[in-house]
Amino acid sequence: MSILTLIHRKDEYIVTAIPGTNLLNIIQDLEIPGFNAPCGGKGTCGKCRIILKKGVLNPVTEQEKALLDSPDIANGIRMACCCTILKDSPITILVPEAAESRIQASSTLLMEQHHPRFRSLRIAIDSGTLNDQRSSLSKIVSEINTLGLNSIQTSFNPSVLHTLGSLTNPSQESTVNHPGEWHILMDKSNLKDIQHTKTMYYGCAVDIGTTTIVVHLVNLLDGTILGTWSGLNEQKRYGADVISRIQFCMEQRENTGKLQKTIVNQIDDAIKSLFIEASIPEEHLQVITIAGNTTMLHFLTGSDTSGIAASPFIPIFTDSLSFSSTELGFSAIPHTKIELLPSIAAYVGADISAGVSVTNLLSKVSPTLFLDIGTNGEMALGDNGRVVCCSTAAGPAFEGANIRYGTGGIAGAIDSVKLENGKILYTTIGNKPPIGICGSGIIDAAALLISSGAADYTGRIESQENFEAPWIVVFDGAPALLLASIDETNNGTPIVFTQKDLREVQLAKAAVAGGIRTLLKDRNISLDDVAHVYLAGGFGSYINPENAGIIGLLPGNLSEKTETAGNTSGQGALRALLDKNEFDNLQIIQENCFYIELSARADFQQFYIEEMYFGDY
Amino acid sequence: MSILTLIHRKDEYIVTAIPGTNLLNIIQDLEIPGFNAPCGGKGTCGKCRIILKKGVLNPVTEQEKALLDSPDIANGIRMACCCTILKDSPITILVPEAAESRIQASSTLLMEQHHPRFRSLRIAIDSGTLNDQRSSLSKIVSEINTLGLNSIQTSFNPSVLHTLGSLTNPSQESTVNHPGEWHILMDKSNLKDIQHTKTMYYGCAVDIGTTTIVVHLVNLLDGTILGTWSGLNEQKRYGADVISRIQFCMEQRENTGKLQKTIVNQIDDAIKSLFIEASIPEEHLQVITIAGNTTMLHFLTGSDTSGIAASPFIPIFTDSLSFSSTELGFSAIPHTKIELLPSIAAYVGADISAGVSVTNLLSKVSPTLFLDIGTNGEMALGDNGRVVCCSTAAGPAFEGANIRYGTGGIAGAIDSVKLENGKILYTTIGNKPPIGICGSGIIDAAALLISSGAADYTGRIESQENFEAPWIVVFDGAPALLLASIDETNNGTPIVFTQKDLREVQLAKAAVAGGIRTLLKDRNISLDDVAHVYLAGGFGSYINPENAGIIGLLPGNLSEKTETAGNTSGQGALRALLDKNEFDNLQIIQENCFYIELSARADFQQFYIEEMYFGDY
Repeated sequence: MSILTLIHRKDEYIVTAIPGTNLLNIIQDLEIPGFNAPCGGKGTCGKCRIILKKGVLNPVTEQEKALLDSPDIANGIRMACCCTILKDSPITILVPEAAESRIQASSTLLMEQHHPRFRSLRIAIDSGTLNDQRSSLSKIVSEINTLGLNSIQTSFNPSVLHTLGSLTNPSQESTVNHPGEWHILMDKSNLKDIQHTKTMYYGCAVDIGTTTIVVHLVNLLDGTILGTWSGLNEQKRYGADVISRIQFCMEQRENTGKLQKTIVNQIDDAIKSLFIEASIPEEHLQVITIAGNTTMLHFLTGSDTSGIAASPFIPIFTDSLSFSSTELGFSAIPHTKIELLPSIAAYVGADISAGVSVTNLLSKVSPTLFLDIGTNGEMALGDNGRVVCCSTAAGPAFEGANIRYGTGGIAGAIDSVKLENGKILYTTIGNKPPIGICGSGIIDAAALLISSGAADYTGRIESQENFEAPWIVVFDGAPALLLASIDETNNGTPIVFTQKDLREVQLAKAAVAGGIRTLLKDRNISLDDVAHVYLAGGFGSYINPENAGIIGLLPGNLSEKTETAGNTSGQGALRALLDKNEFDNLQIIQENCFYIELSARADFQQFYIEEMYFGDY
Repeated sequence: MSILTLIHRKDEYIVTAIPGTNLLNIIQDLEIPGFNAPCGGKGTCGKCRIILKKGVLNPVTEQEKALLDSPDIANGIRMACCCTILKDSPITILVPEAAESRIQASSTLLMEQHHPRFRSLRIAIDSGTLNDQRSSLSKIVSEINTLGLNSIQTSFNPSVLHTLGSLTNPSQESTVNHPGEWHILMDKSNLKDIQHTKTMYYGCAVDIGTTTIVVHLVNLLDGTILGTWSGLNEQKRYGADVISRIQFCMEQRENTGKLQKTIVNQIDDAIKSLFIEASIPEEHLQVITIAGNTTMLHFLTGSDTSGIAASPFIPIFTDSLSFSSTELGFSAIPHTKIELLPSIAAYVGADISAGVSVTNLLSKVSPTLFLDIGTNGEMALGDNGRVVCCSTAAGPAFEGANIRYGTGGIAGAIDSVKLENGKILYTTIGNKPPIGICGSGIIDAAALLISSGAADYTGRIESQENFEAPWIVVFDGAPALLLASIDETNNGTPIVFTQKDLREVQLAKAAVAGGIRTLLKDRNISLDDVAHVYLAGGFGSYINPENAGIIGLLPGNLSEKTETAGNTSGQGALRALLDKNEFDNLQIIQENCFYIELSARADFQQFYIEEMYFGDY
């Protein structure tokens, strides 16, 4: 920690630090909620903005001049990653408050069957005689066995023994009223809890995405969702995508611990607030199931991720593991069991196992695609009882990073764009004045350029001379799409979709479409043969499939067969929490999903290059 | 807590407390190591002695006059349980330091076969290729499986994942030298730990007796005992026997917690000191196995014991249970698994299951007795593959309680007595001047009275007129055996074995012998048919079997067939720690040991009365 002194008032921070310290590192250590640095400090995304109010930093760098607008620079806006502390005298900076994000927490694919994992039983035992001196616990276990629930394992907290003790203690009123009557919680065939009175039990299902986190609070006995918390993954202050966070971990050994602490604390807080919100006590929280991509589960467990970052991409673990919450550093929930869903490979994580499960991909007879498009594009193809899967590095363009005016799905983000009567029409999240453009808007903008002919099949935007339209402007010396003029925005700068932005989209969509074609080729299936496409993830829920088809993100006629499935990862965690067969089912999926490593395939390279272009091939 | 102020200097305590508070309760709350109150404060044992140095307490009571010698009373000695705080001005008391006890920690019955429970494996895995992208953990598990160890369950601390991560981290020198080489700890077929270098692993085997505690520190890989700690159970400050401690628990709900805290802290400290003594780090402590009687295991888990105290004697649990050390309140050893051996009934605990195991009682063809004589006399009879067992309330006489000059096996205790040439000869532990008489001496003294004819078959000691011997004296108005005169002791009082003491021995031995005869009758076996007797427990290790035969503690000719077996309970805990089949074996014992409740049997009552007398019946 290179911070020497710190005064903090609302979003204003007065800091002194060791000269030479990078300002981004200081802000990361301050753990300011909502602050993000998508590129992890490489100076390429321009998102880690702060305002210098007092004091001196190094002069504005070339990187800042390229990525910040002049009025912003004039107002003292800096990119934290480009700033260095010069002296140990204080600087005062303003870290803008984060806008709230639109996050797709639920899935449209609900559970079809329910084999309850948790059951509450009412059991009566007598207080014993000289001819039957079995212990209270033995009698309860044998009563459970007479109900046909065999192979009882007793794995519980010692407090269960304390409850049992009150059988003979007259101070417990319920014992007096119903002597020998007990309420038992079973988890599959394991005895988990014993209470005098009918008790509610809770569980949490968690989806840790690279960008967003969703936590459901669930009544374990009837499956009701009592509350859902969602938020941006606070690890974003260390980078937007898994690679930049892994690089952060590789810089210093203790950084892995910082990422673990960040995610553990965030889930801890989320669960605490869910219980407060629902006005129910935390004490009967039994289990937390967690889905997420392989890297996120590695961060959660404090595992080394360097093997994931580089070929041959070897993770530390992919199996379903369980821990006590204390072992992972949770504090709000000290004795809860944490169960991780199994992953398939370094880049096909438990989020995809979950998706394969909730879409029943393993039992599809007709070819069915499952796509989860975010920073990475993970995909799986189910066909005749067999699943092949792969992952492509789409990059964070669809999350709004590396896009000049890109942003997450926050209020004021342009989330749809269309051309009507020669005019650009757009909508923003929350109908707020536009502040940037998010994933669904980015796809629409790209599709608009292609379908209007303003950009050709190579992705080159025509100059104002060749394509006359009021919304073609020049930005950074190249033609660009003007989405919102200075009059429409609040900060004195227009919002444009640049030539460079379109190139980012090209790279991203080529990776996804190339992956789809490689999977299909592997199973000798044509695009036309595909019967159905599930589009999962928060991003997928908001995009216009038709436009995704126009830009070739969904190649061929896939867009016509596409169903958005919402947060299938969170839905899989819910299923693991509530369905007693789900972990077995996930293991079958893990064993039967064949992972294809695209980086080793020449055919993928070919498809990738082909798909770089817009239009038919 | 009724203590208002406390100053403590060595064994001197200056206390103010709320007037009306009982002094014993104050001293119990002070948690003074070694202090004991065998009768739990009923004023009947005279052992909770303190010296009043300054201040005023209530006048000496009749109970104290009956149980303390006049010179002691003159010197300010009081029984804490008879003293009440009168005002809130300070009193200064001296709590005598406890002498060290002789405790039988080991057993003569060593393990015959060794099926190692823990194994260390060396496994080499490659760092992966694009054609084999399995996770590090998957590769290790499949390597283990190729060694023929099936059904691997992975149940480990997240730190194992952190170790695995260093595969790719060049800062670990060992990785550089032996890339991909790992040292694995297996517990049965469970993967428990992964390390870079060959690592030592430790376990502890604990025997919690009502009176004594034994803790072994063990090298799990070769079974070597690296150190043994033994001490008196600090719970003795709440009573010497299980009944007085249970009564203490029933007085107030939180008292069960006090007993739990006492035993947990004592074992915690013992383990800590064993590791320090052996100069090895605690971090690789894997598991602690604990044997003990049913009540002690209930105290350890904070379970209610009131069901044990009264008919029909129903414990909370008898099965083998396991907990994390944190759940039970251990602090020195935060993440260790604690495994309790299974018990058979409320008064035939895991100590006896352990004894039945280490004596192989279940597989004996000829009738074989197992006796564990202490405060309770537990016994089991093995015959032709069947075991019956029972427990008798011998009372704490053999532990030195309720005996006028009785004491535990501490330095200065008279531990053997014989008559030679008309003179009493005795030995003391550590050859120290005599301070009292312990169990083995008590049996010798009783046998001497019987065999010399100084006491008749009804247990009446002859008066000096009828039996002329210099060692027959008068004490409390009745004849008594003079063991050590004023000249031989250090404190100005002689040591005598009184008529009342002999009555206590009569009751105790009748209970044990009556139990033995009931077991034999149940299996239709005569005393002569018994092939072998194992005498277990600390007390049994030191007694003279011949004298135990003379007083009828071992009825018939059992004394001729008796082998002392030492601490079979601790030995059983060791076996559970080191032998992978032992918990299964103990479960078979639990299911096949038939418990006989003596309180329900008229035949036991008959035997008990018959055995009250000395000599043949």
